[in-house]
Amino acid sequence: MAMMALYPGTFDPITNGHLDIIHRSLSIFDRVLVAVAVNVRKEPLFGTEERMDLIRAAVGPEPRLEVDAFQGLLVDYVRRRGARVVVRGLRAIADFEYEFQLAHMNRRLAPGVDTIFLPTTQENFYVSSSLVKEIASFGGDVSGVVPVAVNHALRARFPPATLPTP
Amino acid sequence: MAMMALYPGTFDPITNGHLDIIHRSLSIFDRVLVAVAVNVRKEPLFGTEERMDLIRAAVGPEPRLEVDAFQGLLVDYVRRRGARVVVRGLRAIADFEYEFQLAHMNRRLAPGVDTIFLPTTQENFYVSSSLVKEIASFGGDVSGVVPVAVNHALRARFPPATLPTP
Amino acid sequence: MAMMALYPGTFDPITNGHLDIIHRSLSIFDRVLVAVAVNVRKEPLFGTEERMDLIRAAVGPEPRLEVDAFQGLLVDYVRRRGARVVVRGLRAIADFEYEFQLAHMNRRLAPGVDTIFLPTTQENFYVSSSLVKEIASFGGDVSGVVPVAVNHALRARFPPATLPTP
Amino acid sequence: MAMMALYPGTFDPITNGHLDIIHRSLSIFDRVLVAVAVNVRKEPLFGTEERMDLIRAAVGPEPRLEVDAFQGLLVDYVRRRGARVVVRGLRAIADFEYEFQLAHMNRRLAPGVDTIFLPTTQENFYVSSSLVKEIASFGGDVSGVVPVAVNHALRARFPPATLPTP
Amino acid sequence: MAMMALYPGTFDPITNGHLDIIHRSLSIFDRVLVAVAVNVRKEPLFGTEERMDLIRAAVGPEPRLEVDAFQGLLVDYVRRRGARVVVRGLRAIADFEYEFQLAHMNRRLAPGVDTIFLPTTQENFYVSSSLVKEIASFGGDVSGVVPVAVNHALRARFPPATLPTP
Amino acid sequence: MAMMALYPGTFDPITNGHLDIIHRSLSIFDRVLVAVAVNVRKEPLFGTEERMDLIRAAVGPEPRLEVDAFQGLLVDYVRRRGARVVVRGLRAIADFEYEFQLAHMNRRLAPGVDTIFLPTTQENFYVSSSLVKEIASFGGDVSGVVPVAVNHALRARFPPATLPTP
Repeated sequence: MAMMALYPGTFDPITNGHLDIIHRSLSIFDRVLVAVAVNVRKEPLFGTEERMDLIRAAVGPEPRLEVDAFQGLLVDYVRRRGARVVVRGLRAIADFEYEFQLAHMNRRLAPGVDTIFLPTTQENFYVSSSLVKEIASFGGDVSGVVPVAVNHALRARFPPATLPTP
Repeated sequence: MAMMALYPGTFDPITNGHLDIIHRSLSIFDRVLVAVAVNVRKEPLFGTEERMDLIRAAVGPEPRLEVDAFQGLLVDYVRRRGARVVVRGLRAIADFEYEFQLAHMNRRLAPGVDTIFLPTTQENFYVSSSLVKEIASFGGDVSGVVPVAVNHALRARFPPATLPTP
Repeated sequence: MAMMALYPGTFDPITNGHLDIIHRSLSIFDRVLVAVAVNVRKEPLFGTEERMDLIRAAVGPEPRLEVDAFQGLLVDYVRRRGARVVVRGLRAIADFEYEFQLAHMNRRLAPGVDTIFLPTTQENFYVSSSLVKEIASFGGDVSGVVPVAVNHALRARFPPATLPTP
Repeated sequence: MAMMALYPGTFDPITNGHLDIIHRSLSIFDRVLVAVAVNVRKEPLFGTEERMDLIRAAVGPEPRLEVDAFQGLLVDYVRRRGARVVVRGLRAIADFEYEFQLAHMNRRLAPGVDTIFLPTTQENFYVSSSLVKEIASFGGDVSGVVPVAVNHALRARFPPATLPTP
Repeated sequence: MAMMALYPGTFDPITNGHLDIIHRSLSIFDRVLVAVAVNVRKEPLFGTEERMDLIRAAVGPEPRLEVDAFQGLLVDYVRRRGARVVVRGLRAIADFEYEFQLAHMNRRLAPGVDTIFLPTTQENFYVSSSLVKEIASFGGDVSGVVPVAVNHALRARFPPATLPTP
Repeated sequence: MAMMALYPGTFDPITNGHLDIIHRSLSIFDRVLVAVAVNVRKEPLFGTEERMDLIRAAVGPEPRLEVDAFQGLLVDYVRRRGARVVVRGLRAIADFEYEFQLAHMNRRLAPGVDTIFLPTTQENFYVSSSLVKEIASFGGDVSGVVPVAVNHALRARFPPATLPTP
């Protein structure tokens, strides 16, 4: 019986912080399922398929990793997939509050599912997808905090010509 | 001279956490006035009247409780109603910051009005109206964290048929 | 039946922050009982009697205020005195964590007793007894953050002559 | 070589908290450049020019102060202006998290630029532009927490007649 | 290859919060090693052997659990035992800061060892060994927050006769 | 008129985090005075002179840096030295609270003196003198987080032979 961990998120796009959590999950669990949340009420920068492709490109060939997408309640998807453990990265205080709220509510909804937290490495402590998108939208260089494929995808979305001339 | 406490909020909808604060306020003060904030800029899930009805249904018959709605500045309403004490529930760090900001600003605007905080009970520490609505919108079971009438109202709003089929 | 609030603390010595909480408690509750904790394991700067006298001197004549001392478990004392409400001042995040821990544990030990929090006024937000003692011990001027009687008592304890000559 | 500090922000509108940070920056650095952020995605209450004028009116004549506006990435603007130090006010925990995230990301993008934090004075600890606007929009009195010119501008925007009659 | 998780702590004494973390670790990992820290500079209430016995008594027969003691640097012990994962419970903000500091320093000292955090269940969110000892020392009832064997051990240490008579 | 910044602390011993704050202070201010606090009530690991020597060894030759020691109230020393700015490093939430308390109290005691905060770089975010001493006392390798001279001094204090044999 191989233990599978499920790592859910928006991944819009995947950052080096997410990538680190994936690698550490792979070193702890037999299999890791990265689950891209499809939120019909939010407009992501990258589509569901593109977000999944960027995750696969960042990790590279890894038979123990699966990338999937889900809609609706996380705990329903967790049970449908037969996962026992949900993995979340922890960066800072703001994360902490929201993540605890989610973990406790999910525990109430699905008592058999445990949430574990992995502390983000220091180099990625202040990296977030939204900050990355904001900087890239102004033409800033985010190559140091995102995987190569994501850097290319962001440049394609925000070409230098779109920069406002003050 | 009976001391009245005013418990303001959006209550969209009332949760077991709010209900606990109401019961504890009733055990401390002679009268409790629950005041539903009408915010013309935000679109609530439940209308003002329905939110007030759900509060009354959750508390049940209680002559020392009044449920009302208000618009505009809280301190103006507090003074108009002759209240001396504003009650707020405290859950977590995020609450703490915002609540302190409001309490201090209200104190500046109405020096004679005091804000007191009641710590939310542990069972309700991670319950919020917005999380309840999000879970219910995906068909999740929130019966353990909201009053019965609210559970019915949420099910009426989010019938199982509206769930996306993956 | 008059509602009495119990305000426990070490008060070693009382500061303007404590005094503000006492005045606001008096404006909300019929009677206020300030209870000085006698901790046999900690060595206070001022003795129990002196701490009680400094509180009385700071508040002045007030028939609705009682100053007492207690040993042992707070909830035992609260029940012995027939109080229903414990008042605590809230200053900052560090307070918040510890105070919540105490409030929840006390609620477990004495379900009928409620803890309420009053936010410290801005001028006293950064005042603590221990900081006051540290500054006074170096000859610093703390007259702006403690009652007059406390300022005199601190000067008597830390006369200028005791200052180290560098 | 005169050291210039750059104080960026939305300043929609400037509050007494901002003004205090400006005055203290002027007492530490030779020159201070207040930089109003132009965010094309957010709709401010006051236009860029009006926000700049309100800052100038609040500070009064001061040859060592410059007020400017910028678009795009902060670090690009900082380098274009030849500044070495970015000044930010720190109020509360919520600020702290976001400000640290920004400071570290900016440091990554522009290693030669340092961010320094000045703690907001206690009187302004709970003052924010958004709270000021919310209170003013309901006809509340914010004269104690904003400069005189801002108070007039807010009254012009939110005349008493626009108040809803409950 | 069975994955072993190591759960270090002082456990002076074990509480229901610790017990919950042990049970959840057993449901995620093949084997769990509870490691009692021997700190020669701190005087614990219970000796090392007694703390180990209380843990074993609380968990009951479980072939996949080992209880051990260690001295010196945690990461040295982790490597000596061949563990890959260190488990820690997370309760509140104060924990969070210190735990992150330790996790990152341990990661620096032993790059192959990961620290994972499990959120404490709500019922145990405010339970700590030190608070339990303080309450028990005053004769308070802690039976609801510690295992039965610990409750007995605490009563043996703090018999009712030792209570001060006020 | 050259602006001098004063950087006070215990520095028992100086870490790479302190060193980074010194270098950044030197890049902002004309002169930097590192002031080692002599606390007669605490027993440091290194004596005052040794702590000062370790700071000088870590920074190396720098005519704009002065290392001194002080006793008593910080603001008294600041005024005696004619400094206008006190520099403090900010690491985490726990720091934040205490540092703000000190900054505000110092501002009250010496209105003309400003405290500025520099955010610690990410690599040093979790480094503290006390954690460094704890790890070194168990024979752990702290060479990556302290200057070379400090590493040698710690090894001299905690030779491998002093390690307990389990």
